[in-house]
Amino acid sequence: MNVTPLSKTLLLTLLLAAGPALAAAPDIACRSNGSWDNACLRRLYQGAPGTWPKPQVDAGVTWQEMAPVPAVAPAASPRQAARVALGRALFFDPHLSAKGQVSCASCHQPEKSFTDGKPLAVGEDQLMGRRRTPPLFAAPFAAKLFWDGRVDSLEAQVLGPIANPVEMNHPIAAAVARVNGLEEHRSLIQAAFAAPALDEAQLAWALADFVRSLRPPATAFDRFLAGRRNALSDKELQGLHLFRTQARCMNCHNGPLLTDHGFHHIGLSYYGRRNQDLGRFEVTREKADLGAFRTPSLRGVAQAGPWMHNGVFPDLKGLLRMYGNAMGNPTAKAVAAGDPYAPPLSPLIRKLELNEADVEALAAFLQTL
Amino acid sequence: MNVTPLSKTLLLTLLLAAGPALAAAPDIACRSNGSWDNACLRRLYQGAPGTWPKPQVDAGVTWQEMAPVPAVAPAASPRQAARVALGRALFFDPHLSAKGQVSCASCHQPEKSFTDGKPLAVGEDQLMGRRRTPPLFAAPFAAKLFWDGRVDSLEAQVLGPIANPVEMNHPIAAAVARVNGLEEHRSLIQAAFAAPALDEAQLAWALADFVRSLRPPATAFDRFLAGRRNALSDKELQGLHLFRTQARCMNCHNGPLLTDHGFHHIGLSYYGRRNQDLGRFEVTREKADLGAFRTPSLRGVAQAGPWMHNGVFPDLKGLLRMYGNAMGNPTAKAVAAGDPYAPPLSPLIRKLELNEADVEALAAFLQTL
Repeated sequence: MNVTPLSKTLLLTLLLAAGPALAAAPDIACRSNGSWDNACLRRLYQGAPGTWPKPQVDAGVTWQEMAPVPAVAPAASPRQAARVALGRALFFDPHLSAKGQVSCASCHQPEKSFTDGKPLAVGEDQLMGRRRTPPLFAAPFAAKLFWDGRVDSLEAQVLGPIANPVEMNHPIAAAVARVNGLEEHRSLIQAAFAAPALDEAQLAWALADFVRSLRPPATAFDRFLAGRRNALSDKELQGLHLFRTQARCMNCHNGPLLTDHGFHHIGLSYYGRRNQDLGRFEVTREKADLGAFRTPSLRGVAQAGPWMHNGVFPDLKGLLRMYGNAMGNPTAKAVAAGDPYAPPLSPLIRKLELNEADVEALAAFLQTL
Repeated sequence: MNVTPLSKTLLLTLLLAAGPALAAAPDIACRSNGSWDNACLRRLYQGAPGTWPKPQVDAGVTWQEMAPVPAVAPAASPRQAARVALGRALFFDPHLSAKGQVSCASCHQPEKSFTDGKPLAVGEDQLMGRRRTPPLFAAPFAAKLFWDGRVDSLEAQVLGPIANPVEMNHPIAAAVARVNGLEEHRSLIQAAFAAPALDEAQLAWALADFVRSLRPPATAFDRFLAGRRNALSDKELQGLHLFRTQARCMNCHNGPLLTDHGFHHIGLSYYGRRNQDLGRFEVTREKADLGAFRTPSLRGVAQAGPWMHNGVFPDLKGLLRMYGNAMGNPTAKAVAAGDPYAPPLSPLIRKLELNEADVEALAAFLQTL
């Protein structure tokens, strides 16, 4: 069967998602022979983030320290506040879709970190995309949007799902006409644009301004960042320390949003196989982008599953074990054979020495974000 | 894992592709207790197709008798002949793709019934579509083209793969400019259009005229149709008889091209699961079209694998066993539960009583087409 390569990957995924790794825990600060000295760990993390142990990132990696997510700036004008209010109303309005079946919020559900709990996005008429609904907390801060970074402004981004036939399936001009015909948005439109009707650019502006106003709810990690040192349990603190060190997570997941807003191939391109998705390469056609997808924010990550751009991981611990195994490096053979389109795994992804307690601690830390 | 439903289907497919069905052969004309009377069968098929046993088709099904494929009409003018010649040259010219990597013929290879042997189409830069390269022998006779029938002329069809980013990735205007700049096509363009350069409509016209000129090579079945009664072996003749009767194939695969040129849901929509493809519904948004794909011609079918719109069957006998099992009817539960988007299996697909010898005979017959 031609599906064998895929099935093999799935089998590997299942094995790695199920079986405990039995590697010995390597010594890192405050741990020896696999045992944590929690008092020692508390001391390391007693100050502000700038004083914490330096993260384990590779030479050449630009990273930012962990930090609180910047607050939304106060509205510069009543019009801006009104645009956000209009954008919010439109975000939750299924009239934006052709048949009125789905709103932006059908897929971007606030309580699921603005995702939908599904492996792949499902739009009007039950049509399905080939990627997962992306979480939105990084969107206000990202230079490039969508999993493949194909647009560089929120104004351009927000129109994509409206027009996309497998999402809201509504030509933008028709969506604008629909919105302008609805009594319920009239006063918001008047307040936002001092006019009785909006145009395409204004529809995009209002939705983009609403997305720009989205922030993750405050969590235990935020309280810890703010100086409440008992906001994380010992196990969660061990997870934070592993995240910064042994598990190498901060090579990509750093800064206030826990993302570098960059693109990396982490081994999920399914190159040459059914479900192949070459990610950012499909936009740029630059071989350096083969199989690369945007690093998602980890803010609210526990509520944002199933994970990865294609929702292939239903379990965060399975995902962590897979990272620990260098994601299986499924294209290694094709790369070695010189296939010019086989995506080389990002050199940031390496086999890690994580045992099952490490995976548990990392998963516990992820729950605090 | 969210992949379980897919894996289940694959498992079923594998089982059905591997394991011999052990049903007793029901009695049909010239067979009793599972034994064929080949002399009897020869008598049934000694005359012209119109005298053969009536096929087993359901009430309401419009069908045509098996017949030779109509020959290409002689060119009505030297210009038409020149258009075909130009279209042929363009069909094999990789300059039509943006980077010059692929021609129409890269995917539509004459010796593979104008398919490519791959489960899913692969275009320039190794990008992959979600459907298989369709065979072309039915194209000159079809009212609607592509697996989902989204265009209704060959002129519209031939431009699709040129512009498609995951196929030839070439904006049509750029492809036209490229062709006009090539010395090698100049005299053919002059002969076809009495001009030194062609425009977009003429590019389409030439390619379409070439596709209209494609005919399957003559086969054993053609010789049998033409009256050479020893052109089919006993086993192949048993397969022909089963094809017309017990196996119900002619409900969809009838007429000279062995296709009704229609659309049917045969259970491969993957509804609600990864790899969902609702086929013609995605074009019409009519629920009657949920999961329906174009019936392919069976002319040259043995050379056109792997089979189905998504190339999921690597083996014709596995495919036949799956038909014998009513394709597993994977959406039956969702249909019964009243899900309005769950595609009901075409009523033409039913559990068949085919044993392994029947499958062998049918496969042998398919090899003669």
